Amino acid sequence: MRIARFISGEDPAYGVVEGDLPEPGPDGELDLSGLQLAVLSGDPFFQPTQSTGERIPLADVRLLSPIIPRSKVVGVGKNFADHAKEMGGEVPPSPLTFFKPNTAVIGPGDPIRLPAVSDEVSYEAELAVVIGKIAKGVPAEKAREHILGYTCANDVTLRDIQRSDGQWSRAKGFDTSCPLGPWIETELDTRDLAVRSWVNGELRQDGTTEDFVFDIPELIAHISETITLLPGDVILTGTPAGVGRIDAGDQVRVSVEGIGVLANPVMEA
Amino acid sequence: MRIARFISGEDPAYGVVEGDLPEPGPDGELDLSGLQLAVLSGDPFFQPTQSTGERIPLADVRLLSPIIPRSKVVGVGKNFADHAKEMGGEVPPSPLTFFKPNTAVIGPGDPIRLPAVSDEVSYEAELAVVIGKIAKGVPAEKAREHILGYTCANDVTLRDIQRSDGQWSRAKGFDTSCPLGPWIETELDTRDLAVRSWVNGELRQDGTTEDFVFDIPELIAHISETITLLPGDVILTGTPAGVGRIDAGDQVRVSVEGIGVLANPVMEA
Repeated sequence: MRIARFISGEDPAYGVVEGDLPEPGPDGELDLSGLQLAVLSGDPFFQPTQSTGERIPLADVRLLSPIIPRSKVVGVGKNFADHAKEMGGEVPPSPLTFFKPNTAVIGPGDPIRLPAVSDEVSYEAELAVVIGKIAKGVPAEKAREHILGYTCANDVTLRDIQRSDGQWSRAKGFDTSCPLGPWIETELDTRDLAVRSWVNGELRQDGTTEDFVFDIPELIAHISETITLLPGDVILTGTPAGVGRIDAGDQVRVSVEGIGVLANPVMEA
Repeated sequence: MRIARFISGEDPAYGVVEGDLPEPGPDGELDLSGLQLAVLSGDPFFQPTQSTGERIPLADVRLLSPIIPRSKVVGVGKNFADHAKEMGGEVPPSPLTFFKPNTAVIGPGDPIRLPAVSDEVSYEAELAVVIGKIAKGVPAEKAREHILGYTCANDVTLRDIQRSDGQWSRAKGFDTSCPLGPWIETELDTRDLAVRSWVNGELRQDGTTEDFVFDIPELIAHISETITLLPGDVILTGTPAGVGRIDAGDQVRVSVEGIGVLANPVMEA
């Protein structure tokens, strides 16, 4: 099931995306014309939901981030060997985690705003895991039970500030640094999925989740060993090689196979 | 005004702490017997509040963390030169920020739980700033307008994990790593206040906010340049020299002059 959050009238609402998901084109564009939303009442995270019976063409609504975490986004650095190498480093001995606050989250189509403090901003295409059930001290073999679903993420990074600050809070936690979407896919075999990005229609990253250094159950076990994950919290699973610069006026697209495409324009702050 | 959050019946409530605040004793203990709570209806962060007329002796209630941030706690590393030196470093050229998630927050009297992954856990006494009004791009000279008040914090740190992970997310973001309290003082001149800690009644830290490398308005300006601060977000302003180990069975107290004392027992996870 694909759960989207959207706005068409006054208030945000949730809906189930119906229709066959097409493959993205060679430039990363996704044709949404055959898809529609079956509108839900309630909030799939905290309330019982049911279909209202209403159906809206997906192209007629504005999609929002499918989730605004009540607590946190946990990112994972250097979880692909080829990306660790392009950054001039090795893969870490255990998952290298960092936080993005919920104030960093934006949705599909929302602009990534380039902060004036940075001269070098980079996209990072990632598979995002959305937590459905509170997780503390969860072993890897039970980790899947705590997942609601998956979406696409862009772990936008101020590369110069990342180097100069040492701690990654500003570099990866600034406002608009966490585009999420286009929706949450609740049924997905995540073992071998293409993770791709395009800038202005040009393919830049083309990795696969098969190359994760630490797989999703290992990440959940590692994080939840010390940190409680709440429903709606998000884990970013790391980016493959091919990261690079974005500038105002660019359009960046992230796709995870089986989910869809997350597209965001880039603007000055 | 001192705003406390407490529980005496079923639901948490807010109250104003009335009475003359005594000085902590030489072992860090604070005699609360002369203080009482004037109970409020509503939530001082998000709703109009008024006195219910009810008064309860402070000693008869369980105090809770005065705030659970909707978004984040922003910590600041090495904001005292003497502490930067004891950690073997220099003061940074700009504020060195990191995040603690809201899942790390506990209140007065709640146990600090030592995670099994660490063999070296340290207390860090700090003055905490509670944001009252949304802040983005706020210049230092207007920063005070965005502050609701101040409380005490313990920036509990897994010192060994801090060294081995590099990023401080686990070391400073684990569950129970952010005791806050005992209440929020809304009227305070923060320019020269003693920041102290005791372990088992023995004084360990005794600094003053006069020695901040970056003062509170500079911190708010720096953070809000890239990151929106929401009402209820908390900034930890850094710890003076004298940090050290805590073990299960210890009692750790943090005091900021003019606010009060935050006491927490230390237990195994």
